[in-house]
Amino acid sequence: MSSQIGRKLKVSIFGESHGRGIGAVIDGFPSGMTIDQEKLARFMDRRRPGKDKTSTPRRETDQPEILSGVLDGVTCGTPIAAVIANKDQHSADYKNVAHEARPGHADYTGYLRYDGHNDVRGGGHFSARLTAPLVFAGGLCLQYLEQRGIYVGAHLASVAEVQDDRYDPCELTAEELLAPGQRAFPVLRESAEAEMRDVIEQARQAGDSVGGVVEVAVTGMPAGVGSPVFDSVEGRLAYGYYGIPAVKGVSFGAGFRASEMRGSENNDEFYIRDGIVRTRTNHHGGILGGITSGMPVMACIAFKPTPSIAIPQKTVDYVRMEETVMQVKGRHDPCVAVRAVPVVEAVTAIVITDLLLEEGK
Amino acid sequence: MSSQIGRKLKVSIFGESHGRGIGAVIDGFPSGMTIDQEKLARFMDRRRPGKDKTSTPRRETDQPEILSGVLDGVTCGTPIAAVIANKDQHSADYKNVAHEARPGHADYTGYLRYDGHNDVRGGGHFSARLTAPLVFAGGLCLQYLEQRGIYVGAHLASVAEVQDDRYDPCELTAEELLAPGQRAFPVLRESAEAEMRDVIEQARQAGDSVGGVVEVAVTGMPAGVGSPVFDSVEGRLAYGYYGIPAVKGVSFGAGFRASEMRGSENNDEFYIRDGIVRTRTNHHGGILGGITSGMPVMACIAFKPTPSIAIPQKTVDYVRMEETVMQVKGRHDPCVAVRAVPVVEAVTAIVITDLLLEEGK
Amino acid sequence: MSSQIGRKLKVSIFGESHGRGIGAVIDGFPSGMTIDQEKLARFMDRRRPGKDKTSTPRRETDQPEILSGVLDGVTCGTPIAAVIANKDQHSADYKNVAHEARPGHADYTGYLRYDGHNDVRGGGHFSARLTAPLVFAGGLCLQYLEQRGIYVGAHLASVAEVQDDRYDPCELTAEELLAPGQRAFPVLRESAEAEMRDVIEQARQAGDSVGGVVEVAVTGMPAGVGSPVFDSVEGRLAYGYYGIPAVKGVSFGAGFRASEMRGSENNDEFYIRDGIVRTRTNHHGGILGGITSGMPVMACIAFKPTPSIAIPQKTVDYVRMEETVMQVKGRHDPCVAVRAVPVVEAVTAIVITDLLLEEGK
Amino acid sequence: MSSQIGRKLKVSIFGESHGRGIGAVIDGFPSGMTIDQEKLARFMDRRRPGKDKTSTPRRETDQPEILSGVLDGVTCGTPIAAVIANKDQHSADYKNVAHEARPGHADYTGYLRYDGHNDVRGGGHFSARLTAPLVFAGGLCLQYLEQRGIYVGAHLASVAEVQDDRYDPCELTAEELLAPGQRAFPVLRESAEAEMRDVIEQARQAGDSVGGVVEVAVTGMPAGVGSPVFDSVEGRLAYGYYGIPAVKGVSFGAGFRASEMRGSENNDEFYIRDGIVRTRTNHHGGILGGITSGMPVMACIAFKPTPSIAIPQKTVDYVRMEETVMQVKGRHDPCVAVRAVPVVEAVTAIVITDLLLEEGK
Repeated sequence: MSSQIGRKLKVSIFGESHGRGIGAVIDGFPSGMTIDQEKLARFMDRRRPGKDKTSTPRRETDQPEILSGVLDGVTCGTPIAAVIANKDQHSADYKNVAHEARPGHADYTGYLRYDGHNDVRGGGHFSARLTAPLVFAGGLCLQYLEQRGIYVGAHLASVAEVQDDRYDPCELTAEELLAPGQRAFPVLRESAEAEMRDVIEQARQAGDSVGGVVEVAVTGMPAGVGSPVFDSVEGRLAYGYYGIPAVKGVSFGAGFRASEMRGSENNDEFYIRDGIVRTRTNHHGGILGGITSGMPVMACIAFKPTPSIAIPQKTVDYVRMEETVMQVKGRHDPCVAVRAVPVVEAVTAIVITDLLLEEGK
Repeated sequence: MSSQIGRKLKVSIFGESHGRGIGAVIDGFPSGMTIDQEKLARFMDRRRPGKDKTSTPRRETDQPEILSGVLDGVTCGTPIAAVIANKDQHSADYKNVAHEARPGHADYTGYLRYDGHNDVRGGGHFSARLTAPLVFAGGLCLQYLEQRGIYVGAHLASVAEVQDDRYDPCELTAEELLAPGQRAFPVLRESAEAEMRDVIEQARQAGDSVGGVVEVAVTGMPAGVGSPVFDSVEGRLAYGYYGIPAVKGVSFGAGFRASEMRGSENNDEFYIRDGIVRTRTNHHGGILGGITSGMPVMACIAFKPTPSIAIPQKTVDYVRMEETVMQVKGRHDPCVAVRAVPVVEAVTAIVITDLLLEEGK
Repeated sequence: MSSQIGRKLKVSIFGESHGRGIGAVIDGFPSGMTIDQEKLARFMDRRRPGKDKTSTPRRETDQPEILSGVLDGVTCGTPIAAVIANKDQHSADYKNVAHEARPGHADYTGYLRYDGHNDVRGGGHFSARLTAPLVFAGGLCLQYLEQRGIYVGAHLASVAEVQDDRYDPCELTAEELLAPGQRAFPVLRESAEAEMRDVIEQARQAGDSVGGVVEVAVTGMPAGVGSPVFDSVEGRLAYGYYGIPAVKGVSFGAGFRASEMRGSENNDEFYIRDGIVRTRTNHHGGILGGITSGMPVMACIAFKPTPSIAIPQKTVDYVRMEETVMQVKGRHDPCVAVRAVPVVEAVTAIVITDLLLEEGK
Repeated sequence: MSSQIGRKLKVSIFGESHGRGIGAVIDGFPSGMTIDQEKLARFMDRRRPGKDKTSTPRRETDQPEILSGVLDGVTCGTPIAAVIANKDQHSADYKNVAHEARPGHADYTGYLRYDGHNDVRGGGHFSARLTAPLVFAGGLCLQYLEQRGIYVGAHLASVAEVQDDRYDPCELTAEELLAPGQRAFPVLRESAEAEMRDVIEQARQAGDSVGGVVEVAVTGMPAGVGSPVFDSVEGRLAYGYYGIPAVKGVSFGAGFRASEMRGSENNDEFYIRDGIVRTRTNHHGGILGGITSGMPVMACIAFKPTPSIAIPQKTVDYVRMEETVMQVKGRHDPCVAVRAVPVVEAVTAIVITDLLLEEGK
């Protein structure tokens, strides 16, 4: 019943795509952290649309204005509120879809949920644009974690049937982890970029769209964080990931592949290196019994293809209760997974920071 | 940081495998429901071990004693506490594994989390035995939901590489939904039973284990329940599912397959039947924008193979900080996914009941 | 650990007295309510300082800008964010008090809490100015409640030793309840205004300040709302009231007087009028066993005298760890209780709305 | 909507007065604490009824059986469940009051809240007997706090019009703090015992009852704990205190008296002693801006007179909707405040422990 995540670090997201502004309130962020504004801007820039053909040409400056909780660039410990003004809205594009349920979108379910009073322009509160304040909040958390030697990185593990390489789940360094995020296109295997761009461009030209999978990892994670039963690290992260638009699957470590393995294969053998307990494989994704093991935390998040496609689709007008055919107009990413990479990093950073603060670790 | 789930319906689980007892406190359950004790016992029986070779021969009567919140078989509206006494423990079996980290288990992470003070006998609080009170709580919720025409059912979608059929995601009836749960072995395609039993038995004889996938569905689910951003139905359910031991993946609708689809294929066309908005396919798993659409809610949960295997494994003694080889003794299910089917139903029922109560629907 | 209140209706407050802006995010507010902007402005105006000598001469327009959650004046059901820009700050007034603990203020405790990183200008996040967004949120809730026939009103029960009359706890009408709020000075007995203004003015001229008590009541409250043990209506309201700066006491019904009564006197006799169960007296303050009885909810909230006084005071510099003498400069209300009356109404409305939404009533 | 308190330390209370048992689940208690069972029993004994004429002659052994979370007397870190069996119920005493609303009791409001399905025997879930598991939970927290040098103590500040002395709010030692709890009757001034026993006995003989005030204090409290706006230490404690049956008022420091003081009198002058910032008076009750100052935390809690009195009272049968006259039978404390003293200590300890754990302090 809420647009909020977190226990001790609470991140509240507000706004509609075509309203006056969107933003976040971050309550419980530690005091005394000097914000690296440039780094934060670079991180937010990775999510920003309009950079090339893989994303919507809608241009946003997305410059968050910090209203509170930061003094002379240092966090105060009090709630940090940030607002991003909405500027480049083309509401006219959406006028004709008012009561026609765009397939794959939340128009109809949102209509039911809010008794028809929600702002549907541009997807309203359901818009992927709401991930901008989320990335702002996540960017602050990433800086907090980095100060503690904890790094979060992600890449496009696949787009449609095109596969990237995977992170080394055992020997992953911070450098390898963060490399995809420093590229224009977030992949590990450089040659994957052209292949993925091809499949995305083909979909775009066909008025269609494609899905993808984002792999995310956390290195430097302290062991012993999380809880059995209901407060597992997996449960907390998955709850967060399902808050990202278009996510339909979340797995950790070997994930669904584990269901096809024998125990003798899936079990990760423990050993000791430099006085630290480690595992030789990492099918457990750095989490055992809901608690971190000290090995990299590894997750995969599946994104469905962008529901907004130019191809005409059969649907209904849910007010007139009539069947109809519609063509979605407006500007859209042909593959939401691309820009979702920093969003996944942001959510990961928010949840991990919350867990560490909650457990006083 | 807690063994509790829920907002308005709060289910707290307590106990250790070899302690005096395990149980649940269910706070916020609606008053006035007459409990069908026989139905509840049958449901709990589905999780009970020792019935055949697919599960541990440990015998439990698992008869919960209700201490509060129920008067003359009718719920009072006050907290319902139920205790299951522990009887058939063989603690001696576990003596020799005290500080050796069983691969795939939470021995080491639990040791870190609780500074070495947790009860490790039989897995302690991490034991799958803790799912018994969860199934008790879920059984009450299933009865509440059924009174409202909402049904929850699940089956073994796969064991290792053996596949069962899948539920019809659009035309699923309550009868088809509940059929697997009424069989001795919870599958849709009857011939799948022998194949799955084979692969499980082979693993058992080899001292090994296998994983599996459980598919769960909810029919009769009211449309318009759930919220965008962080309180999606997917997020709430996934958080619950990751509280079940051995879960490593959770997906909704087309799940990870959606990442390989084109938008034109994945988008579910809307239409009207008998005055109700429906979709012709159900790749969205009954949830759009985090909110139920009225179509069946569909999820898949991946279970890793049972980590307890008889084959000797390399590991460490995390107190002496020495590498060692161990052989896990004790009695174990060669495939946890089998008995997990009612546990998945239970968690689904708990989360759906909580959502409905929270939203006053 | 947070500047937030509520379960289903979550109100987050942010901002510092001399920062860029203050505001609120209101998550979970019902959709479809047309906001009466003029009524809201009038309500916020009651809290606004600078109207006369009883309050600080600081002038604020306090016009909240609604950024989200409202479309064409109607609530969407999505989070409502409102920002009030800070304009009339005189930070220079506070420069000399930087590390001197103003007695009765949170300078020293805030310094410890935030490791010295909080914005101390004008009290920062501790400033009573933060009650402006709270009054905005409460104003929306008051309108929601009024649509349901539930009214919240308050008055100055006392200022220093000057007493106002008390609300009739049994036969209170909405008209009598709301009358004090429609006056320039919120009292029941009109002659109390001059007496209270006198005692406040005397304190002001002496460079001193006075405390007071606010009595608040709710009429039209449905019976049966709230819970025994920890979710009593008293507990929820008290938690909210203690979020208002300067509150040191909260009581319900007969309150502390009940401790001096005999049971035969304090017990409220039940009777039936017009088919409704009522009580002839209302020492229980409309709440029995934590649950509303249908009688008016009655509470008293004690405010300490404004800690900012012009008289020189002994104190310490908590950074230099030296004792010193300071004189608080700046503009201050000589009696915070006066402007706290609408703040008490706002908090009451927020908590009652949250309870009703949470219980689906 | 729940019988639970806490954020990181969650205490759930369950049970009905005449059901099978009552108990508590304590989730989040730190691991590794050796429980002093004898001390715990002594503490629980202070709440136990039937010791003398000031309390109900109902005899309970109230021996909690610990089912989980404790191994060899040491806390595991996992949920601690404790059950107290109900034995000495005289349900017949309550038969005739089934639908007659006992004045001052929650019979009628409970009937509405639970749609008539709650167990009304002996007050059911509303019974003061439910404070027994609360005292168990609080007893564990007291031991945790004492290990850290934090002490919680309380005494009967008044019974009806008879006053005890008050704790010295500035120079309070642990010895003075705990002295009343070590006496048979929890007062500071020994001569107050006879006076209070007199006024209670007079009420008892008259078939009547009396109220009282409990003063509670915490010494050794670390400074800097708590938060401004909604998570004040006052708000957290008050929320807890209002969970104790019969509480109608809660104040901190000077409390309601502060409302009659001038700022120059109420402000507590800061000074430095032994390198520590202190105040010369403690009208602020150890809390400024919602945050602890390091001075003793001081609160007063007002209890109404026991509503169960032998004198015939006018009331209604809320099912037949008829007015009637009733005489409450059964065994009752003529002054609930006496046995409430350890309950207040317990709730204080629970809330303070939760705050410390939550803030990682």
